[in-house]
Amino acid sequence: MTTGHEEEHPVKAFGWAARDTSGILSPFNFFRRATEDEDVRFKVLYCGICHSDLHSAKNDWGISMYPLVPGHEIVGEVTEVGRKVKKVKVGDKVGVGCMVGSCDSCQGCDNDLENYCPQMIFTYSSIYHDGTVTYGGYSDTMVANERFIVRFPENMPLDAGAPLLCAGITVYSPLKYFGFGEPGKHIGVVGLGGLGHVAVKFAKALGAKVTVISTSASKKDEALEHLGADSFVVSRDPEQLQAAKSTMDGILDTVSAVHPILPLIDLLKPHGTLVMLGAPERPLELPVFPLLMGRKMVAGSCIGGMKETQEMIDFAAKHEIAADIEVVSMEYVNEAMERLAKGDVRYRFVIDIGNTLAATKP
Amino acid sequence: MTTGHEEEHPVKAFGWAARDTSGILSPFNFFRRATEDEDVRFKVLYCGICHSDLHSAKNDWGISMYPLVPGHEIVGEVTEVGRKVKKVKVGDKVGVGCMVGSCDSCQGCDNDLENYCPQMIFTYSSIYHDGTVTYGGYSDTMVANERFIVRFPENMPLDAGAPLLCAGITVYSPLKYFGFGEPGKHIGVVGLGGLGHVAVKFAKALGAKVTVISTSASKKDEALEHLGADSFVVSRDPEQLQAAKSTMDGILDTVSAVHPILPLIDLLKPHGTLVMLGAPERPLELPVFPLLMGRKMVAGSCIGGMKETQEMIDFAAKHEIAADIEVVSMEYVNEAMERLAKGDVRYRFVIDIGNTLAATKP
Repeated sequence: MTTGHEEEHPVKAFGWAARDTSGILSPFNFFRRATEDEDVRFKVLYCGICHSDLHSAKNDWGISMYPLVPGHEIVGEVTEVGRKVKKVKVGDKVGVGCMVGSCDSCQGCDNDLENYCPQMIFTYSSIYHDGTVTYGGYSDTMVANERFIVRFPENMPLDAGAPLLCAGITVYSPLKYFGFGEPGKHIGVVGLGGLGHVAVKFAKALGAKVTVISTSASKKDEALEHLGADSFVVSRDPEQLQAAKSTMDGILDTVSAVHPILPLIDLLKPHGTLVMLGAPERPLELPVFPLLMGRKMVAGSCIGGMKETQEMIDFAAKHEIAADIEVVSMEYVNEAMERLAKGDVRYRFVIDIGNTLAATKP
Repeated sequence: MTTGHEEEHPVKAFGWAARDTSGILSPFNFFRRATEDEDVRFKVLYCGICHSDLHSAKNDWGISMYPLVPGHEIVGEVTEVGRKVKKVKVGDKVGVGCMVGSCDSCQGCDNDLENYCPQMIFTYSSIYHDGTVTYGGYSDTMVANERFIVRFPENMPLDAGAPLLCAGITVYSPLKYFGFGEPGKHIGVVGLGGLGHVAVKFAKALGAKVTVISTSASKKDEALEHLGADSFVVSRDPEQLQAAKSTMDGILDTVSAVHPILPLIDLLKPHGTLVMLGAPERPLELPVFPLLMGRKMVAGSCIGGMKETQEMIDFAAKHEIAADIEVVSMEYVNEAMERLAKGDVRYRFVIDIGNTLAATKP
């Protein structure tokens, strides 16, 4: 059973929450727990707007709990640490991504794969160990067990670095796990949005040849000239698909709408893997024969473990990788959500929490 | 263009062929090529009846060429070898499986994966290098390039060993490639037919724990007591599925009818792989969310390369693995096909070509 946080938690917090399936966000006073021994508390400075925030605010997946404070690309400055905390100190720049808890005793947790722990706790709209509902980063303050804290390197911009905590690790982890990020490999990236544009950057930095696959020919110049992709395939053009057939070692598919995957499977070399990163609401059509004839695979991947998330952010800092963002104010969030739903952002909105949230207090 | 073989090929042959989509087989006189430098010619003694033979005879896949002589689990005794042949000599027992040719120059062929060569030539109803149609093992004589010849070990029974040339390698190759055949691994086998029953034997011999997953509870005793499986799950029983949830490292799915795969994906541990070995005529429903949440994979696998096929048959001989068969006469083939369509065989029909074909000559 969940309880009102004010009965359990002493630390006042202020943020914006969705109250129902309209998904409309509005100011919200709530409470967070006191800083426990292994906890890191930080003042939130920036928070990215992930497409999941939109789905969750509207309860598209049927698992939302209202009031719902979204936000799982959270960056800020440490204000307090528990007495056992070793990872960071007051004043450090830190981040929290998609999860804030796990069981700490399963095979996943034992192997730095908290993201695959069956009891993984999401950063918002999830039930924490103490029975209370978790609240995300569209808020002034955040607290999390140090296991789920990411240290931000000196040269990583706080605003453009925030989206890496979800979008970045979501593409980095499969690039590494499936062996895509190696010189000589040819990797396809489907969809040029929040995930796709950082996928191109990471895959290039890891040494792969990268082809962007998009329904929209208008993104070609952007993909090649701005993001540094090597080539571009319009997924609705049969001739371009035919020309690229059987050329890719792996494909990261970032599209979360229902879409055909047979053309993507055909782009793979034998033994290649199509990795789904988005979760369409309905099942996709899986043609089996093309999988058989090339020993091909369709896999899923979901963010990454905390050790790998730190590795990702350090790698990004070293290679000067960050998201392309549009910084917005807190009060602009509902308009940003509307534009996000239409794909009208290049490529990620980031809310300037530090400078604009306080002004929205009623 | 194909031509009448009698114009090109000098060696008389006799077998049974399907003439149209009825799939009914009847006696058929045809010709095979002379023994070329790298060719091995052999007298056919036994040929297994694979479910693919049934599909091909009826043109279920739309690619059959009539008259069609089925059969790709062919075993016999060498009667002649070309002057460059090193692999076998006259009198040796040999087999031919699903393929008789490939391009010999692609990455697949260079890596002993002729089965994934884009120009792989099937043993029957395929166009050979010389432009003629290939004919399978329901016939008195066979000829093939030595690359596609498998040496039969001394102690391997010719009749019960024949089905290993297709069914055996089809399950052995993915057990090895996906790392399923290792002590400590828990492997599911879906469907207890021609492929499934040898999958249980190979997986056990490789050291895995094996669970048979079947729609039919009636196969439980057979699976556990006769085939040596460790456990049995009725796939239509939600309680049994729940009890086995997240316990399997890999699953070999031998079912070629359209069927739900979500229950199978749920049986996999995180990072587990479901390998499809049958090719349903329509696409399956692929639920993406369960793949994401456990970094799970759905893969396909198609027979195996010739080097691995030899390894498989040698392994089978060492571990006394063979198919459970019902030996039938050539003239019984149409009845056998009917029974196969109904699943009325335990587990593979093998035609006694050597002793029963000649008597059917008109």
